[in-house]
Amino acid sequence: MGTTQLETVPEPKYWHLKTVISEALDSDFSVGEILPNERDLAARFGVARATLRQALEQLELEGRLQRRRGVGTTVAPPRMGVDVSTTQHAWPGAGQDAWQTVDGTTAVPPAAVARMLDLDAGEETHIVRRLRVPHSQPVAAELLYVPASSVPDLSAIDAPSGPARARAVLRELGRLDLEGQDRAVELGSARADDAKELDRLPGAPVLVVTTRYVSGGRTAAVSLATYRADTCRLTFGDSGDLEISHHDQERRAS
Amino acid sequence: MGTTQLETVPEPKYWHLKTVISEALDSDFSVGEILPNERDLAARFGVARATLRQALEQLELEGRLQRRRGVGTTVAPPRMGVDVSTTQHAWPGAGQDAWQTVDGTTAVPPAAVARMLDLDAGEETHIVRRLRVPHSQPVAAELLYVPASSVPDLSAIDAPSGPARARAVLRELGRLDLEGQDRAVELGSARADDAKELDRLPGAPVLVVTTRYVSGGRTAAVSLATYRADTCRLTFGDSGDLEISHHDQERRAS
Repeated sequence: MGTTQLETVPEPKYWHLKTVISEALDSDFSVGEILPNERDLAARFGVARATLRQALEQLELEGRLQRRRGVGTTVAPPRMGVDVSTTQHAWPGAGQDAWQTVDGTTAVPPAAVARMLDLDAGEETHIVRRLRVPHSQPVAAELLYVPASSVPDLSAIDAPSGPARARAVLRELGRLDLEGQDRAVELGSARADDAKELDRLPGAPVLVVTTRYVSGGRTAAVSLATYRADTCRLTFGDSGDLEISHHDQERRAS
Repeated sequence: MGTTQLETVPEPKYWHLKTVISEALDSDFSVGEILPNERDLAARFGVARATLRQALEQLELEGRLQRRRGVGTTVAPPRMGVDVSTTQHAWPGAGQDAWQTVDGTTAVPPAAVARMLDLDAGEETHIVRRLRVPHSQPVAAELLYVPASSVPDLSAIDAPSGPARARAVLRELGRLDLEGQDRAVELGSARADDAKELDRLPGAPVLVVTTRYVSGGRTAAVSLATYRADTCRLTFGDSGDLEISHHDQERRAS
């Protein structure tokens, strides 16, 4: 693992360094191990510290390294596969839902959500806040927007806000006939409140999954779920019945 | 749009600024329009340039802004919805495939791919390189790894490499019985060759979609597809038959 490999490549220097470090992580380090400091690493690979830092940033983006204040840079465990397929065909909160209902409130949704729900300007919706916590570590935070017209029988007797209200909204929503859902994933940056719940800094890259629940030919609810991009791989597909070992599933896929 | 909104929020200053600019983009700017320079923008919003720059970086991450050398910062069009669902249930290259076959070669795949294909150390696979070009602008670059064992009848008469070889590999792969496919999406950074084809800088954030094609109870091929994260939303779900207007589909979803 000398410096000679770095000399004849057309790629940016830090990029090839990234590959070299990545291979070293596989062979010389174990998950959770703390990396040597930047000065020692730069000397080991024969590069400037600025180059090293770029390579480490890339490896963090790819989920290979974690940088934690007070700890240093550690080797990250493989990303966790989190199922986001729509094969369950169920309303949020139904049956074997992977989400915990945290809170409920009423507010004007963001403009993009208002457009998807075809709301009037300034029209409020119910907002259910949920967390997805597979192994005692939250991996995703969700805001579910439900217009009043989707839950017409919601009783005024129910709590006006809070978890009880959230559960009442989900219960009423579940009475509708779910015709289908479409889903999209895109890159985003963590909002401050999501970041806090996900133990990330505001603005950290996240994967935002938008789900549109359709009933009666119209969009009855919209979910915006923010997944940690550093620790999650989002899985979907038609392979619910495929024989693929847990071991393989846990492996890093890129 | 004064500065008063920035004063009483618990979020980082640049974060709230981001929201304010985002609203200004909606109301005061049109797609493709060039933003004022940083000094003027900082003055307009009453913030330091460092704060402004952080907010602009976030908006670029979220696909609202594009920064291009020699042009400046422009308002990005809404992200394009790109279907990555597995509902087609077909081998790569079959029927209405959205991909263009570009090249074919043989090489040792990355360690993660070798593990998924259960290869011996140093074992080579066929590699088919494809591009996804929906509107004359490439949005994704793919490397499809096909072990020799998946295409046993591949004729030695076929070209040893290049597009003709790639097509021969796809043709032979298509003879297998496709049992299923699973798919995962995660955050990655653009490799130099992908970056070039996608008109991005190496290391730019990308969405990496890994597909495992299963035949005969084993993984017969693995695809690593790198999508531009700035311009793409990846769509999937069970809504192929839902009545949702094109207009809505094109809207930004977060």
